[in-house]
Amino acid sequence: MPPVGAALWRSLRAHQVYGANTDVGKTIVSTILCNGVQQQKTQGKAAFLKPVSTGPLDEADDRHIQRFGAGTTTKCLYQFDEPVSPHIAARQKSSTPPRDDEIIASVHRTLSEWAASSDIDFALVETAGGVHSPGPNGTSQADLYRPLRLPIVLVADSRLGGISSSVSAYESLLLRGYDVHSVLLFRDEYYQNHEYLREYFSGKSIPLLALPSPPPKPPSHHPDALARDADAMASYYHRVATHTDVAALLDELALQNTQRIDRLADMPRRANDTIWYPFTQHHGMAPKDITPIDSAYDDYFQTFAPAAPGPDTDGGGSGGGGSLKATFDGSASWWTQGLGHGNPSLALSAAYAAGRYGHVMFPGNIHEPALSLAETLLRDSGNSRLGKVFFTDNGSTGMEVAVKMGLRAACARYGWDAGNEQISILGLKGSYHGDTIGVMDCSEPGTFNKKVEWYRGRGYWFDFPKVRMEGGVWRVEMPAEVGGEMGEDLEFESLDEVFDLQGRMGEGAARRYREYIYNTAERLVYKDGMKFGALIMEPVILGAGGMLFCDPLFQHCLAATIRNHPSLIHADASKLTPKPKSSPMSPSGELPSWSGLPIIFDEVFTGLYRLGRHSSASFLSVDSDIVVNAKLLTGGLIPLCTTSASNEIFAAFDSPEKSDALLHGHSYTAHAVGCQVAVEALRTMGEMERGGAWDGYRRDWAGVSSDGDAEGNGEGGGEREGSPRVWSVWSQEMVRELSCAPAVEGVFAIGTVLSISLRDVEGGGYTSTAAKGLQETLAQGGGSSFQVHSRVLGNVLYLMSSVTSRPEALREIEGVLRGALV
Amino acid sequence: MPPVGAALWRSLRAHQVYGANTDVGKTIVSTILCNGVQQQKTQGKAAFLKPVSTGPLDEADDRHIQRFGAGTTTKCLYQFDEPVSPHIAARQKSSTPPRDDEIIASVHRTLSEWAASSDIDFALVETAGGVHSPGPNGTSQADLYRPLRLPIVLVADSRLGGISSSVSAYESLLLRGYDVHSVLLFRDEYYQNHEYLREYFSGKSIPLLALPSPPPKPPSHHPDALARDADAMASYYHRVATHTDVAALLDELALQNTQRIDRLADMPRRANDTIWYPFTQHHGMAPKDITPIDSAYDDYFQTFAPAAPGPDTDGGGSGGGGSLKATFDGSASWWTQGLGHGNPSLALSAAYAAGRYGHVMFPGNIHEPALSLAETLLRDSGNSRLGKVFFTDNGSTGMEVAVKMGLRAACARYGWDAGNEQISILGLKGSYHGDTIGVMDCSEPGTFNKKVEWYRGRGYWFDFPKVRMEGGVWRVEMPAEVGGEMGEDLEFESLDEVFDLQGRMGEGAARRYREYIYNTAERLVYKDGMKFGALIMEPVILGAGGMLFCDPLFQHCLAATIRNHPSLIHADASKLTPKPKSSPMSPSGELPSWSGLPIIFDEVFTGLYRLGRHSSASFLSVDSDIVVNAKLLTGGLIPLCTTSASNEIFAAFDSPEKSDALLHGHSYTAHAVGCQVAVEALRTMGEMERGGAWDGYRRDWAGVSSDGDAEGNGEGGGEREGSPRVWSVWSQEMVRELSCAPAVEGVFAIGTVLSISLRDVEGGGYTSTAAKGLQETLAQGGGSSFQVHSRVLGNVLYLMSSVTSRPEALREIEGVLRGALV
Repeated sequence: MPPVGAALWRSLRAHQVYGANTDVGKTIVSTILCNGVQQQKTQGKAAFLKPVSTGPLDEADDRHIQRFGAGTTTKCLYQFDEPVSPHIAARQKSSTPPRDDEIIASVHRTLSEWAASSDIDFALVETAGGVHSPGPNGTSQADLYRPLRLPIVLVADSRLGGISSSVSAYESLLLRGYDVHSVLLFRDEYYQNHEYLREYFSGKSIPLLALPSPPPKPPSHHPDALARDADAMASYYHRVATHTDVAALLDELALQNTQRIDRLADMPRRANDTIWYPFTQHHGMAPKDITPIDSAYDDYFQTFAPAAPGPDTDGGGSGGGGSLKATFDGSASWWTQGLGHGNPSLALSAAYAAGRYGHVMFPGNIHEPALSLAETLLRDSGNSRLGKVFFTDNGSTGMEVAVKMGLRAACARYGWDAGNEQISILGLKGSYHGDTIGVMDCSEPGTFNKKVEWYRGRGYWFDFPKVRMEGGVWRVEMPAEVGGEMGEDLEFESLDEVFDLQGRMGEGAARRYREYIYNTAERLVYKDGMKFGALIMEPVILGAGGMLFCDPLFQHCLAATIRNHPSLIHADASKLTPKPKSSPMSPSGELPSWSGLPIIFDEVFTGLYRLGRHSSASFLSVDSDIVVNAKLLTGGLIPLCTTSASNEIFAAFDSPEKSDALLHGHSYTAHAVGCQVAVEALRTMGEMERGGAWDGYRRDWAGVSSDGDAEGNGEGGGEREGSPRVWSVWSQEMVRELSCAPAVEGVFAIGTVLSISLRDVEGGGYTSTAAKGLQETLAQGGGSSFQVHSRVLGNVLYLMSSVTSRPEALREIEGVLRGALV
Repeated sequence: MPPVGAALWRSLRAHQVYGANTDVGKTIVSTILCNGVQQQKTQGKAAFLKPVSTGPLDEADDRHIQRFGAGTTTKCLYQFDEPVSPHIAARQKSSTPPRDDEIIASVHRTLSEWAASSDIDFALVETAGGVHSPGPNGTSQADLYRPLRLPIVLVADSRLGGISSSVSAYESLLLRGYDVHSVLLFRDEYYQNHEYLREYFSGKSIPLLALPSPPPKPPSHHPDALARDADAMASYYHRVATHTDVAALLDELALQNTQRIDRLADMPRRANDTIWYPFTQHHGMAPKDITPIDSAYDDYFQTFAPAAPGPDTDGGGSGGGGSLKATFDGSASWWTQGLGHGNPSLALSAAYAAGRYGHVMFPGNIHEPALSLAETLLRDSGNSRLGKVFFTDNGSTGMEVAVKMGLRAACARYGWDAGNEQISILGLKGSYHGDTIGVMDCSEPGTFNKKVEWYRGRGYWFDFPKVRMEGGVWRVEMPAEVGGEMGEDLEFESLDEVFDLQGRMGEGAARRYREYIYNTAERLVYKDGMKFGALIMEPVILGAGGMLFCDPLFQHCLAATIRNHPSLIHADASKLTPKPKSSPMSPSGELPSWSGLPIIFDEVFTGLYRLGRHSSASFLSVDSDIVVNAKLLTGGLIPLCTTSASNEIFAAFDSPEKSDALLHGHSYTAHAVGCQVAVEALRTMGEMERGGAWDGYRRDWAGVSSDGDAEGNGEGGGEREGSPRVWSVWSQEMVRELSCAPAVEGVFAIGTVLSISLRDVEGGGYTSTAAKGLQETLAQGGGSSFQVHSRVLGNVLYLMSSVTSRPEALREIEGVLRGALV
């Protein structure tokens, strides 16, 4: 089933009724509210929806409302006879229970119909049992109904113990991002729960209404129990109907619905007044260019679409459609998202660490989340050089730390006085390592930094061969410097072959790469007199530079050439480089020293499964001396960054002088909340990998789609046996098709990333119009059941999924791309 | 009552029994566990503690255990007769109920005694009702008992609806940082809750034990109901006793207790192996220098103190003391802490935003928490110039943004080409703005940056007059440049007078300040040819530079001189500065343009109530053009930073060129979790201020302690009427006493900050030994009921509280300081 928009209509005040426990009187409260609506003559009618009902039909809650809720429209979607939890009732029934997404779609459809009808303007969707009572498939209702994120009417528990169950139920709802709009419960003068809870909820600005207690149920063995009960209930409802607070509460609920919509509609204007957006030219920007996001769940934003302007501004649409739309988060929220928005287990991890620690200052102290995260990262990195983990808050600060580490180690070994000499870095053209000025200096001059007053590029950046599929063929495009007299690009039948570094090592390209690198470095150091302190690379893909896919063989050769020829960096390097004391391959032996330059891998974007592997360095068969991780580190929830380094780099800061220490450290260093969430995110992604969650994608990429005879052998990087070296959630066939499309210059997919370089069909020049057009098609939905939010880098449109994205959604997006381009 | 250490003993496995609801069989489960312990002949005895019991004495839970729990030691601390929630029972009783901290202290004392006894090695502390059932003072039990953070035995609910209440209860415990060590419940074959919950909890690695159902209670009207019930229960317990799983669960619980202690003891070694600490020289550092923090609550870390090494390493101390100690967080966790560790409302805010959004990408989008935070900050800043809010992740990145903003605005107005000219900043000596290289360049050369290879100081830094109390007198110490021929320092009777800017404006010091600033700037620009792009200051206190308290009049004069004499910066400045179109004081009128230089206030440390006011700029009566907030912004939970700027600064980036935009933006920009927590933190602190939470401190600082006749009149900064301009949580009298102590060079307190400069009594030279000695005294506790963690900056020892710290704790710390110094 396609994703649904969250439930919000101006023409329908829709609420979900949750109980603090079972048997707290949800249906009686629903009846009272519906009756209250019916009595407000000025308004429309009430409707009652019971998505899943268990127990004998006669006692079903919608029947109760039919009987006592004067004129209320009622509907039940799924009925099970057994008076047990739906997940057991469903199991006992012979037929297959409805899937969760079917239930959600049915509820949304029903509410949409009511919203479109002219006479219904109030609806209650009643749950079964308590907040976490399982639905037919065993999913907790609080999770099951989350995509709709209906505002909640919570029926609290007036019995002994009911304070506790009511508050806990409220907290469980809050944890899932629900808004509780009101609390109702029966008045019990002995336990007085309503007094305590009124004070509790008023502290959260949630109105509470205490209702008279309903009549006790007559003993069921009594012959006319049913009739007696009916009489008593009818007179109870009659009595409550004169309870004026009900009308006031209904007004309050109506007001909240209106205010919520008005606020959503007004948010763009207010944001335009107060927010200075990152990487955004505000010139000519208007409120219409800002999208209000009401909430997000799984892969989808719930974006607010205001009613089309017109004379009837009150309508909020035709009434049939919701004004919130499911929009696929196609940039993975700026490359951070891994485990879906509103992920309850990440939310719980955050809450647990906040409750256990808050933030505790880090130097000189240690706490579980930080230690677990450091140990996990070192253990799973696949890089035996790494020995120490340094924490910061984001990729930019983590790269500043990496640069400080690398430069110090190099200057210490080579005896350079950085205060009086310019020490530069070696990198690749189109690199980007963050927005703070120190790491901006690690990129060559370009758009991102040319207007930064203090930017001074300090380095040399190699041009490099780029990989993409063009016209059905994987091509490695050679820069002029490397092509030399031969000039020709390389072609491959499969992406897997591109990553067959062992096979390619003996070929001509490898030799040309090494020569180019060697000759260039020699010229820079011995002719131009430059001094280099670190080699910095984003493995495989240079993200912000424009989704540039570097030939992994080139990056391998660059690292190897610098390491194998340290004298390229310093004439006495071989003398100054410590020798390993025993075999580098022996796990108990000494590790090899860094050689030539400390190698820094910026895996902020490419690491932690963004490209399908824990470490993107494993594609290159290079163990770096320093590696930086961020973004996916917390699964996409909050900022956190780690800079991991070898013990040898660490030792460069060891000295009796305090001032020789790495004097860097933000106050929230290793904040417990971030570390705990990261531990949970890495655990989840690791389990997904080990459990074969991505095997379907692997299979798609295992064969060469044209001939189907060649299979990757899965060398390197801890890949599963028989699986390809490289795979993507985006289908191999679609990549091939797009690569043949006239508007497409080239395309590639790896891991969760799909990158499409578009041709300016008008011929040459400024090409971003083409990408903007495709972006617009995706934003409109292009015939799919949801919209797609995407980002553009120049003429490149890229899409990025979570590691948990559902294949059906991805295939649907591929359909839109095919429709637009092929 | 003094704070207690959290409950952890090697010699006593202590657990707290919580119920998913009332009447789920907590006492029966407790009895079964205690019986199980009694039967394990190899081990010690069990003990049972009911801190608060309600209902008739005969039915009390400890009586039940006495009867059926063979040989279990039992104790009840507070007994109420009425079978209602303790908060109602306590209200009905004539005597005053025990305070929460008294209950906690009693529980801790009882458990400590049991831990010290040779025969008891297992204890259960049973709660009343459900997780959130209120204690005698109305506090939820989950909050009430949190300081002890006992591992939890959760008794789940086997009835219909019990899945939901069990999961919600678990989530409420998790939110408060509890560890649930096992779940028990009765087997009910009809509802099968145990099956569902077993799977649920096994996903969280929590063992679940399903027990046979106890016999039904005989009808209470039956004459021998009690006797019958007793017989049935005895036979039930006998039957369960053969249930082998109980023994296995007890073994598991014992193992968890041992493993927890072993892990805490081992954490320093593991941290020493894997963690690279910020601002830490690792040379000679050993595991003993690293403190494991098991949890934190309110103002206290729970630090683990390993057993003293000796032959009996198994003992974990004498048995009498806990191995976790309450340690006051005396650096406010590196200046971040405001609302206490483990603050449930901040934890809930974080969880809510995580559940509602996760992180959603910011450019082009808007969500409630970011918009609310931006609007709140602009509204409450008290600075009418500010119009736009830019988000980053920490103070350093926020200051990088501020510098980019300021330089761009200045270069645009003055027509400077920053690519070819060096644009510097004006600041104060001893400034510190963060650890990224761009903002390191904003500080003069010194310890923090001299070993940073890429550091190049770009600015001029004024020496400035420093405020502190010496020998009972508030003294403003003049630097040589300002003293001139007069040379003398200023003296004041009260700190309030120092902040009486209006009164001091006409005096000689103000004139000397202005002259010094004017002459210096003129020389730098017109003689040395320097170009300046921004004036940067930390208002009132320069934190990392050594807690330097700058005369607010000097900072005022610096800002005013640059603004009033723009030609100091650029010869044509007056011509180039736009004129305000109408009165600057009119709320609807145009604001004055920035003049001379954009003024950047770094309030990362000093803002948001750290110094007792929302904005520390209000002490200076200067509205800056750009202000940076972080640290306290989230109340001390997670990293977040805002850079707020005037609309005029914003306009300097407005252009049809995309590349003119402020191209800065970390991927987690305006992450929803941080923004939501910040909104809650600012709301809480604002309510505390409006509610007079700090009036006691204000009163202390309102009078001059010697004569008691002069009172501040509360001008400026939105202060409460009749309240002093400046106040501190640290008592005025203690500050005076310390200032007269022989070992003290000078001292000051403002807001939550206390700073003590220590004299090297040996005379001159390297003075940090003195501060280290005082730090050690605090760490040992110095006779107080808790230890104090503090930080030292050179010869300065500072202490910093939360805004919620309890006066009693602060007075106790003052006692330690007096004892050590006076």
